[in-house]
Amino acid sequence: MDYSPVLLEIQKEIKPLIGKGKVADYIPALASISPDKFGMAVTTIDGSVYTVGDVSEPFSIQSISKVFTLTLAFKYVGERLWNRVGKEPSGNPFNSLVQLEYENGIPRNPFINAGALVIADTIISNSKNALSTILDFIHSVSGNRQITYDRKISDSEKRYGNRNAALAYFMKSFGNVINQIDQVLDLYFHQCAITMNCIDLSRSFLYLANHGVNPLNDERLITVSESKRISSLMLTCGLYDESGDFAFLAGLPGKSGVGGGIVAIIPGQLSLAVWSPALNRHGNSMAGIKALELFTTKTGISIF
Amino acid sequence: MDYSPVLLEIQKEIKPLIGKGKVADYIPALASISPDKFGMAVTTIDGSVYTVGDVSEPFSIQSISKVFTLTLAFKYVGERLWNRVGKEPSGNPFNSLVQLEYENGIPRNPFINAGALVIADTIISNSKNALSTILDFIHSVSGNRQITYDRKISDSEKRYGNRNAALAYFMKSFGNVINQIDQVLDLYFHQCAITMNCIDLSRSFLYLANHGVNPLNDERLITVSESKRISSLMLTCGLYDESGDFAFLAGLPGKSGVGGGIVAIIPGQLSLAVWSPALNRHGNSMAGIKALELFTTKTGISIF
Amino acid sequence: MDYSPVLLEIQKEIKPLIGKGKVADYIPALASISPDKFGMAVTTIDGSVYTVGDVSEPFSIQSISKVFTLTLAFKYVGERLWNRVGKEPSGNPFNSLVQLEYENGIPRNPFINAGALVIADTIISNSKNALSTILDFIHSVSGNRQITYDRKISDSEKRYGNRNAALAYFMKSFGNVINQIDQVLDLYFHQCAITMNCIDLSRSFLYLANHGVNPLNDERLITVSESKRISSLMLTCGLYDESGDFAFLAGLPGKSGVGGGIVAIIPGQLSLAVWSPALNRHGNSMAGIKALELFTTKTGISIF
Amino acid sequence: MDYSPVLLEIQKEIKPLIGKGKVADYIPALASISPDKFGMAVTTIDGSVYTVGDVSEPFSIQSISKVFTLTLAFKYVGERLWNRVGKEPSGNPFNSLVQLEYENGIPRNPFINAGALVIADTIISNSKNALSTILDFIHSVSGNRQITYDRKISDSEKRYGNRNAALAYFMKSFGNVINQIDQVLDLYFHQCAITMNCIDLSRSFLYLANHGVNPLNDERLITVSESKRISSLMLTCGLYDESGDFAFLAGLPGKSGVGGGIVAIIPGQLSLAVWSPALNRHGNSMAGIKALELFTTKTGISIF
Repeated sequence: MDYSPVLLEIQKEIKPLIGKGKVADYIPALASISPDKFGMAVTTIDGSVYTVGDVSEPFSIQSISKVFTLTLAFKYVGERLWNRVGKEPSGNPFNSLVQLEYENGIPRNPFINAGALVIADTIISNSKNALSTILDFIHSVSGNRQITYDRKISDSEKRYGNRNAALAYFMKSFGNVINQIDQVLDLYFHQCAITMNCIDLSRSFLYLANHGVNPLNDERLITVSESKRISSLMLTCGLYDESGDFAFLAGLPGKSGVGGGIVAIIPGQLSLAVWSPALNRHGNSMAGIKALELFTTKTGISIF
Repeated sequence: MDYSPVLLEIQKEIKPLIGKGKVADYIPALASISPDKFGMAVTTIDGSVYTVGDVSEPFSIQSISKVFTLTLAFKYVGERLWNRVGKEPSGNPFNSLVQLEYENGIPRNPFINAGALVIADTIISNSKNALSTILDFIHSVSGNRQITYDRKISDSEKRYGNRNAALAYFMKSFGNVINQIDQVLDLYFHQCAITMNCIDLSRSFLYLANHGVNPLNDERLITVSESKRISSLMLTCGLYDESGDFAFLAGLPGKSGVGGGIVAIIPGQLSLAVWSPALNRHGNSMAGIKALELFTTKTGISIF
Repeated sequence: MDYSPVLLEIQKEIKPLIGKGKVADYIPALASISPDKFGMAVTTIDGSVYTVGDVSEPFSIQSISKVFTLTLAFKYVGERLWNRVGKEPSGNPFNSLVQLEYENGIPRNPFINAGALVIADTIISNSKNALSTILDFIHSVSGNRQITYDRKISDSEKRYGNRNAALAYFMKSFGNVINQIDQVLDLYFHQCAITMNCIDLSRSFLYLANHGVNPLNDERLITVSESKRISSLMLTCGLYDESGDFAFLAGLPGKSGVGGGIVAIIPGQLSLAVWSPALNRHGNSMAGIKALELFTTKTGISIF
Repeated sequence: MDYSPVLLEIQKEIKPLIGKGKVADYIPALASISPDKFGMAVTTIDGSVYTVGDVSEPFSIQSISKVFTLTLAFKYVGERLWNRVGKEPSGNPFNSLVQLEYENGIPRNPFINAGALVIADTIISNSKNALSTILDFIHSVSGNRQITYDRKISDSEKRYGNRNAALAYFMKSFGNVINQIDQVLDLYFHQCAITMNCIDLSRSFLYLANHGVNPLNDERLITVSESKRISSLMLTCGLYDESGDFAFLAGLPGKSGVGGGIVAIIPGQLSLAVWSPALNRHGNSMAGIKALELFTTKTGISIF
């Protein structure tokens, strides 16, 4: 199927939303991005790529990186991972700290910041050079060896990272962070600062659409079951406190980042990436969410 | 496909778990159920039924009724429903009241008790006899006109229903309960006391597996989109604070009740009901959860 | 000592604050009070009375009644009272429900609404006609047998009392309300609707300033120790979430009500009542707090 | 008055409680203290000292140091201090982090850890060598220039200080910690590690009993009003989540530490220090609390 016409339709319908939200401004390096960008790329399992808009411009993937690091940590320690991080949606962000306290330092899931810090800690414990390991993985799944992080962004994250430091120290007080806090935060700030474009991103999530096998080179990265489970986590927890709403509207496993990117997969078929930097109050790309909802409505594709 | 062999296998493997949990004892009428019961029924869209164990014995459907009432309320008021109830998973139960306070009396989703009370309130506002309306609906989707509620259970629920009364009054203080509290609680306690067996239950959820059309009589009950959206809510919020875990393990939209029943659907294919009264610490049937997980593992069926 | 000059000074200095806050409007019966009223009365242990402003006009005493009911309940059950209600300040009001949940239905102290409901429940269990008992007590300590409640206010409280009903049902779910909810709420709404003027109020708190003995008739109402303990609770918990601030500024045991009244005592010396209906964001009389602070500053009186 | 007989009585009556609680064990340096110690010292404003038990053995003053640092910070910045820290009791400890989040990084009062960290931050901003400043102050009020900190304890505090680090980073994310986190934590861990004996401690709190003037040398350290206000904070917030209970039972401004010390003052008369390392579940000295309650009962002294 040729997805180009539907992408053009979406681009047209989405126009009134472009720039309506608010670009992330918690760090200066992100605040300067133009809110008018919009790009969308679809890659099917057979390798065909369909695009519209600003699909070649790299942007900060931010929390989308948490899917890559979860995949790596899951490979390293398997089901033992779930002793240190939960699988439940987190409820509203207001409760993040009280929940950590109530649940003895075990974050609710790998996609809230606390959970991603535990995942980063796990990767550090299991690899020689954690950042290289993450980048190597992304090079492999995207097929693009140029992908790297933006030092200006990672420096900025660090400078404004007091809340993440608080989470890390708090979990360490429960024994749920093992390595040096500085090392864990450093890895986390670097993974968030990785920049990719829509085409790279849609390609790099194909292994989840393809049940664990990278269709670019037929390499099995994780088991069928692990792939389904990561997809399930994306569906229930992938869009912050808008996860339920997104599942309700789009019905797809997805993961968003405050850089304005969202990736979603349709199991067995394809992977999509959309980018538009202006965010809604939940921290998700305003135009991005609508674009993905339109895609499922127009194509009739849904997992339900 | 003949699902009988897989059901027999599951029955065998599940045996060590039977009776391991704890039968609901918050009301005397439930505490007397034998923990050793186990039944499982599959109904496919074409109407074939496969069963194993205690599938003809009626039990209290409890929170499973919330899917029926959500369907009715959704039909009545459409998207306006979401002004009064959210679509997000609720996080741990500890927070239910503080979240209601923080979010101005709007429950997180229709499947937590507070949400189900708002749904009951909506049905009362939109039907002459709310309880008859619910029973009629169940008669229609199950094809069994004998189904009714157990008065001993509804009386017992009422006697021990102080916490639900607290929720109702609290939401009324925010203006999110419109009818008399007594009327709302009464309806809620009666819907929870409806008794059905596994065969009835699996049949009655076919309309969701069949995208809104009751395959027993080809009647469209809700739109395709509404059906998918209810399924999505079941996946993200259907098993209390174990919803994420269940999605992770079984990958199916499901709904549980403290009577020990769980229903799940496989979109486009079938609906399953399992019953075993002993519950785990989250209030879900211990053997039931395992049985559904085994079903997806053995058949390879999953939405992801 | 003649307190008249200091009261006149205070009246003058307080003028710019009169009417600055917001009259309680959660029930219509209170919303109609003029915000411009101000009265202040001092009664010394020897019975001398000093007044300024609107001291003869009765107003709704609201939560000030909680001191009278605490005194009665303390008399009835003694130290056993503390099995059902705590003695700790409650932190911010946002947490009231979550704290009840966390602490198994035991309110933090007798002056938050949940605590006052438990106190009301205790009085009902220990007296034939609870409302008469409370009124008799007030008649005795004030020396004014005309004091009664305002039916318009008690009716209004009842109509808008959903949040208190929620608290009562919630505590009943923990077994910490014994009598019928309706009966408990009824008593509570009536005690809050009692109307008294500043002179009555200042007189009626003399038994606490006088270590348990009503100086009007030398009757010992409670022991020295009980009197000191009630005073201590007033200091730590008497002004909602402004109790610490009031102790910091005025250094006196006090109790406020949303009717705009505040009573304070100076142990061994006197009792003061002030009334001004416009409230600050904590629900305490704006001019009243300032007046009491000025009184301690100008007289140099303080318990510290 | 000669307080020796009453101290002897107390020592006898307290005996069954000695060692009943649990010595603080969150750091190894404290866990090794013998739980059987008990000492009590009274210093009157005229300089007389009455003692019983282990009054010459120095122990870790821990949170008692927060009164000294509050006094210094209050001197430095005056009422501006209250823009950065509140004056309200904190409710149960469970809520400490959620309250910080709810109240934008402003701790409830200067005696919870978060508040003491803000106070430490304030002293660093206003003095050349903050630790020397604190020690100089203690030397001056105690009249003992030998007092210093125990390096083994401060090192231990630092090693196990992850939760305090979490609080500090969290407040920094709200802009309520200005200096380097390491510097703030370092000062805090050192002030907690200061060791004093009961005689030193009772002497060093005389300036609060004497309304701001050190009676040892007639030096005015703070104004009358500041002294009363610090005393008021001790009464409402000085004993963690047992402050209300202690005010109820003993009716005195006090401050406790997890080293097992408690100091209390009787305004205009005297200052008392008690030490017994075994703690109750609130982190206060079990025998210490009882000893202070007995002191007020036996002498009839109370502020109420």
